[in-house]
Amino acid sequence: MPEWRCDDDTGGNGVKMTLGCVTCSVRQIEALLEHAPIDPDAKMACMKAALAGLAAFDMNLSPPAAAAAFHAKIRDLLGDEDPYRELKRRSTQVSLELFPAMKARVDASPDPLMAALRVAIAGNIIDYGARQGAGRADILESMERALAGDADEDFARAFREDAAHAERILYVGDNAGEIVFDRLLLERLGPSRVVFAVRGGPIINDATLDDARASGLDGLVRIVTTGAALPGVDGRASSPEFLDALASADMIVFKGQGNLETVIDGELDGFAKRGARMYFLLKVKCAYVAARLGKDLLDIACLPAPSEPKGHGIPLCRQKIRVHPRQSVANAFVFCRGFTSTCTAGSVKKKVAPFPGLDSAHTRPPCRQTMRCTMVRPTPVPGNSSWGCSRSKISKSLSASFMSKPIPLSFTK
Amino acid sequence: MPEWRCDDDTGGNGVKMTLGCVTCSVRQIEALLEHAPIDPDAKMACMKAALAGLAAFDMNLSPPAAAAAFHAKIRDLLGDEDPYRELKRRSTQVSLELFPAMKARVDASPDPLMAALRVAIAGNIIDYGARQGAGRADILESMERALAGDADEDFARAFREDAAHAERILYVGDNAGEIVFDRLLLERLGPSRVVFAVRGGPIINDATLDDARASGLDGLVRIVTTGAALPGVDGRASSPEFLDALASADMIVFKGQGNLETVIDGELDGFAKRGARMYFLLKVKCAYVAARLGKDLLDIACLPAPSEPKGHGIPLCRQKIRVHPRQSVANAFVFCRGFTSTCTAGSVKKKVAPFPGLDSAHTRPPCRQTMRCTMVRPTPVPGNSSWGCSRSKISKSLSASFMSKPIPLSFTK
Repeated sequence: MPEWRCDDDTGGNGVKMTLGCVTCSVRQIEALLEHAPIDPDAKMACMKAALAGLAAFDMNLSPPAAAAAFHAKIRDLLGDEDPYRELKRRSTQVSLELFPAMKARVDASPDPLMAALRVAIAGNIIDYGARQGAGRADILESMERALAGDADEDFARAFREDAAHAERILYVGDNAGEIVFDRLLLERLGPSRVVFAVRGGPIINDATLDDARASGLDGLVRIVTTGAALPGVDGRASSPEFLDALASADMIVFKGQGNLETVIDGELDGFAKRGARMYFLLKVKCAYVAARLGKDLLDIACLPAPSEPKGHGIPLCRQKIRVHPRQSVANAFVFCRGFTSTCTAGSVKKKVAPFPGLDSAHTRPPCRQTMRCTMVRPTPVPGNSSWGCSRSKISKSLSASFMSKPIPLSFTK
Repeated sequence: MPEWRCDDDTGGNGVKMTLGCVTCSVRQIEALLEHAPIDPDAKMACMKAALAGLAAFDMNLSPPAAAAAFHAKIRDLLGDEDPYRELKRRSTQVSLELFPAMKARVDASPDPLMAALRVAIAGNIIDYGARQGAGRADILESMERALAGDADEDFARAFREDAAHAERILYVGDNAGEIVFDRLLLERLGPSRVVFAVRGGPIINDATLDDARASGLDGLVRIVTTGAALPGVDGRASSPEFLDALASADMIVFKGQGNLETVIDGELDGFAKRGARMYFLLKVKCAYVAARLGKDLLDIACLPAPSEPKGHGIPLCRQKIRVHPRQSVANAFVFCRGFTSTCTAGSVKKKVAPFPGLDSAHTRPPCRQTMRCTMVRPTPVPGNSSWGCSRSKISKSLSASFMSKPIPLSFTK
């Protein structure tokens, strides 16, 4: 069973770039340029600039850090600070049109909280970084699959309990359009105690403050920005308001692969509240993340129980991987749960991912070594987990039981 | 209907690199490095070197020229002059095992020449550049599809007639393993008048002299090498023996997309015999080539009739595009036919595709401008073609008629 390792030689920046991430980055650049309103020679010039940047990029940084860097470079070359503006507008529009029907489905469900959670994850199909976006049919298919999939009793119980007891919840959103469906989960979690975070600036089709407003979320929850145009989270590059939210939340929900990739193997625990419960809700978008979640996508994979923290790292509990046998990796379903360390918010230094040609200097933040020493590798084998750990699939009867016996939340509407 | 354009601003080197070709190149680099026996850091160092090379590459050159350059760079970094050696050996082995059954199929066919041609094209599925190779099942499926597909009476008649009248045939092979199946067509064409060309050095899984020998072809036909480790053909970088073969063949058969990409929009006609008949037999491996072959893969697309050459370029007749409705682009089937100009073999200068870091200078060969002036754009609309031009599919009855009424060739065994 592969581990989410904290590698002292390289870590602290999230998941490292792999060879596949390089290819994926170039594919993203191609997709972005393909529809740019410039002539073919200018497009190729942009591509060459991006290749040069990638060639000199620090591959110990995460794929979202690379995306932040090369998208910034291309935005400059295109003279367009938000090339995905129109695509995001359309995603929001389609999602708002689909929202009432999905809300009705959730309200009619025997377990509205889990139904809302499934629909929210399914909305993560809208992703112009990892895929070429998703239209109405793709979104509906993703949601139907999510609602029809097997349930995970352990995951549901833990999420429900943590949600019931959390005083403050930080919900870190992902993409425009997707956040429309997050509303269903936000409503079930209780909007008054939730802070909803969006990106600090345009990056791919990730939701910004404008997108959150266009989705009507500003009338529901308090919204903050992460402070960075990064398709993920970086405590060292975060706005004070986001750091405040990190430092005070008892429960943190991260949507999407970019958030996972920057948090896992990273140093966010230095900024998050001691003992905060972390949940990662995403659709797996690449083979690398799929592989790290377990050798077999149908397996259940666990890390050490949260009740027995072994150190100050981020022991992530990969509680459940749900993949329909005929689904592609891109449609895989993942619920992950992780836990922060005993650290409290540390020193903050603005960090900008370096991209040669724009920013040639790459300075490690001074807090880095201090923070590294507070992290250890998670125990490589499952401990005495109260969550249990099984490589077999949850039986149909368990699933049926889970769906038919909802545990009402005190804070549901 | 898109045209095979000869673009005077950029042409002469074959098809230009597109944004998609850049992504595909990086994907190839990833695939090559993925299995290289070096540590992850060394792999990433190779990737960065390749990215730097691509960033500075002359994108007016063809994808095969880029492949030749970056594979040479990576071969140097790996210290392995033929990283695909073992994969090629396995492809040859599997193909030799499958050969007797396919030979029996061809011999039992009512039209052995066309059956042999179909099997030979189907073997083009074995391609470690465009795809991650093909195993026994992939090869068999490709061949079953090829044998079951609709026939193209016009193409068959033209190929048959040209083959019947050609005194010398140059057959430019593509990949190791694939060339085992070329034997079936070589046998039908009459080995004594055929020269079979392989690559001049290791490049991806393209067949070299060693691979041709391992396939037993040296006992069947005369074999020459192109003289270049390029997954295509470049008259200016060719060996004297290959140039002789080009200059004397009445009929030239090019296998695979790499040969197509370097010949189309290129300057090969300056080296080929006046009036030589060219045939391109390949499986389409990318969306770009698919798009250039026609907007709709199921359409029939034609260029001006060969009997009315408009100039000295390469008016290519895309005689037939065969795609099963449920096949993917990668499995598309293409027969193409083109014709060389009135040029005779021109001056030759060894050309090496530039790859920054290895070769920084990029010198246009001195014959370039002379050759450009002998090329014109093909007439952009179909002329009075004796081949006919229809966008409708060939009817089943025509296909049946074609398959049931073989026209015996005087040179078949």
